[in-house]
Amino acid sequence: MAGGAIGLIIAGMANNDVLAWLEQNRSEHLERLLTFLRFPTISAQAAHAADMTACGEWLIGQFARAGARAELLPTGGHPAVFAEAGPKDSPITLLIYGHYDVQPAGEEGLWRSPPFEPLVRDGAIYARGAADDKGQLFTHLLAAEAWAKTTGSLPIRVKYLIEGEEEIGSSHLAGLIRANRARLACDYVALSDTAKLDAQTPALTYSTRGLVYKQIDVTGPSKDLHSGVYGGTVANPAEVLARVLASLHDEQCRVAIPGFYEDVCELSPQERIALNRAPFDEASFLEQTGSPAVCGEPGYTTIERRGARPALDVNGLCSGYVGEGASTIIPSRAFAKVSMRLVPDQDPEKISEAFDRAVRAACPPTVRLSIQTFSKASPYVCPLDSPGVQAAMKAMEEGYGRPPGLIREGGTLPILPLFKSELGADSLMLGFCVSDCNAHSANEFFHVADLEAGARSAALLLSEIAQSVR
Amino acid sequence: MAGGAIGLIIAGMANNDVLAWLEQNRSEHLERLLTFLRFPTISAQAAHAADMTACGEWLIGQFARAGARAELLPTGGHPAVFAEAGPKDSPITLLIYGHYDVQPAGEEGLWRSPPFEPLVRDGAIYARGAADDKGQLFTHLLAAEAWAKTTGSLPIRVKYLIEGEEEIGSSHLAGLIRANRARLACDYVALSDTAKLDAQTPALTYSTRGLVYKQIDVTGPSKDLHSGVYGGTVANPAEVLARVLASLHDEQCRVAIPGFYEDVCELSPQERIALNRAPFDEASFLEQTGSPAVCGEPGYTTIERRGARPALDVNGLCSGYVGEGASTIIPSRAFAKVSMRLVPDQDPEKISEAFDRAVRAACPPTVRLSIQTFSKASPYVCPLDSPGVQAAMKAMEEGYGRPPGLIREGGTLPILPLFKSELGADSLMLGFCVSDCNAHSANEFFHVADLEAGARSAALLLSEIAQSVR
Repeated sequence: MAGGAIGLIIAGMANNDVLAWLEQNRSEHLERLLTFLRFPTISAQAAHAADMTACGEWLIGQFARAGARAELLPTGGHPAVFAEAGPKDSPITLLIYGHYDVQPAGEEGLWRSPPFEPLVRDGAIYARGAADDKGQLFTHLLAAEAWAKTTGSLPIRVKYLIEGEEEIGSSHLAGLIRANRARLACDYVALSDTAKLDAQTPALTYSTRGLVYKQIDVTGPSKDLHSGVYGGTVANPAEVLARVLASLHDEQCRVAIPGFYEDVCELSPQERIALNRAPFDEASFLEQTGSPAVCGEPGYTTIERRGARPALDVNGLCSGYVGEGASTIIPSRAFAKVSMRLVPDQDPEKISEAFDRAVRAACPPTVRLSIQTFSKASPYVCPLDSPGVQAAMKAMEEGYGRPPGLIREGGTLPILPLFKSELGADSLMLGFCVSDCNAHSANEFFHVADLEAGARSAALLLSEIAQSVR
Repeated sequence: MAGGAIGLIIAGMANNDVLAWLEQNRSEHLERLLTFLRFPTISAQAAHAADMTACGEWLIGQFARAGARAELLPTGGHPAVFAEAGPKDSPITLLIYGHYDVQPAGEEGLWRSPPFEPLVRDGAIYARGAADDKGQLFTHLLAAEAWAKTTGSLPIRVKYLIEGEEEIGSSHLAGLIRANRARLACDYVALSDTAKLDAQTPALTYSTRGLVYKQIDVTGPSKDLHSGVYGGTVANPAEVLARVLASLHDEQCRVAIPGFYEDVCELSPQERIALNRAPFDEASFLEQTGSPAVCGEPGYTTIERRGARPALDVNGLCSGYVGEGASTIIPSRAFAKVSMRLVPDQDPEKISEAFDRAVRAACPPTVRLSIQTFSKASPYVCPLDSPGVQAAMKAMEEGYGRPPGLIREGGTLPILPLFKSELGADSLMLGFCVSDCNAHSANEFFHVADLEAGARSAALLLSEIAQSVR
């Protein structure tokens, strides 16, 4: 008991040194994050393969600053970065997960400053990946460096797995984890790729939705036809695609794929109350999205719809002539990108098959149809009563100076269920960015204050996890 | 009677000289058409405005070769070319109409040779505009030159109106015709912008469909949103657009806009028999289009569907992410280009309003909707018993050495009803190109043999029209 108390005092002193070091070096840390953000690591675009590797190598250098051995792990796709630090005899091991790949920039004209030329403006860092996930991930690199620079080591054994394919469905990561199960062995996974509760309050996210991502291709004539000469005589692929897509929802915004809701876990009355305690203001939500109205599955609140109910979205549509003015053609081809967000206990395999069946049934034989699957990821829920969750909550409370909130996240982190099944580890999701950070759209940003409070929380997480096993 | 007979003999001699001149100079004529095709006269794209004017000026030089006064007529858009030739005291006047603008090239990678670098291959000229309409129009320029070079003048008064906005709906031409009614006064209009009956047989087209061309824009969020964070909570514009488009047809391929068929003239049993006498082979039609099946309004043949029944087509679709791989967004915006082909007695104004009403009714208040109208053109039918029709049939029979067919064209020539209403003149449509000439798609072509037989027919048209009033 006395040993424990002394340990606490020593840990407290170390914590203070670590926090002071973070405070003293914050300008340099910011500069270094900007360097990280300059790598155009768009995993979806093959042309950026060399940028991916260059960024991975830069990360190895960052780990060296924390005295951690790091290396690139080949995956068959973009490489992952693996690193290890801290005492080998640590009673508990944490695996920090993050990703260095980013979404495509989208329409460049919508960016106020170029997506890969980071700019600090009004206390925020603007760049593609600023929040998702480079800025948030960087807090954990700073945490490791802070411990190494001030105490010579880390409070616990920490492993790092930074992947380069999160934005394209993490297709090679399952194999990588399976092939390196012993090396990645850990008690908890921690990551920062989720949002805060509101502008002031950090959050622990305890659930994420799954994802099934598809592309539907409809082909009619072998070339674009003159719509005057042929209009009314052959099926128009754009029209057929529209009918197929329209068939995927009913009039009430419910997904109309047979069996889609079959395995959905209904929320308990208690969880509904807890979830809806989070601040939500419809007017600000509409202002934030720019949508004229909220819209979704009947009988659920917006908070429930985005975290605890599944959804289907058309992500892209393309067919025929889309330039200036008019061109009178029957397009040869039309395609759509369609994704589904799943909740426990929906099974991605089963949903994927149900989707294909529904699309095939809706498509007439007057066109040719093909369906591609880009990703399949399971939903995930973390048990709220685990010691790791308590440690993460305490670290954020101290890092931010206020108690964190609890969130069910609408987005997908495809590997959380994998960590659970392959490594037996639950995942702690510490959210440091605001939810309207423009992840996946133009002008993505991350507040400098969140970089700093996030780094403090990430550093304290290591000592809190150490405390949890004393 | 005797004078008439002598006139016929003299005309016959002159005809022979004209045909001989065309035969002797055919290589040079082909070279000159290739020059015409090198102008990238894409009227839909503002960047090509200078190319349009350059091509118009080149045409003026071509008319000078036939001793015709020509000039550019400003229109507020792309200029038109006007020319006059032949005796001022001619008892009958013909107005030759054509267009020097072309469709956009579309996907350049699908072209076997660049669209604006014409290439003669296996007896055909490959280039954007080869058939639609530069190659066919050029036959009439060669006809005028042939008469002028061999007889010093033309058999009748001929006026030429060559516009630069046909592919974008001829929006300025109505004003131009109204402003120049006296100058354009004529007994018939003749044009070659339609197809032959089959590979060997030229055709007189006596009917064209009308056109209403729209763009539907649906806007939801003010920027692309992360489909994980927001999926299921706001309306997705791509999905809404798909539902709107799907609502425009019923399950049987009938257009589902209320009132759409109200003013459609049903075909008489006699005309149905005459129309369906044209050669039609479903297997070759499917091979030609590449579609897996024919498809259209129940109760009508493919020939009837494309010439005598109205149709609605989606010409283009665009929304969200359409690049490589997956991007998980709710698109901010989705748009579609939609065109309707009309038949007598559908009124473009009435159909345009009915379309807007139906689209507005199908669009929920959870998105913002806007509808643009790019063009509105009436359908047209020419009386088959007029002397001009007989003259045109004879000219083609002699030019090609076989009797021409009769066609109801599915495409639109927006100014035919205007010529009728403003100038009181019916239009003679002499078709010299094959119907599968890839107009509006990649690898458009025009057979060299049709350039030659077309020029003979166009030359003989002038003497046949002269004979028709003797």
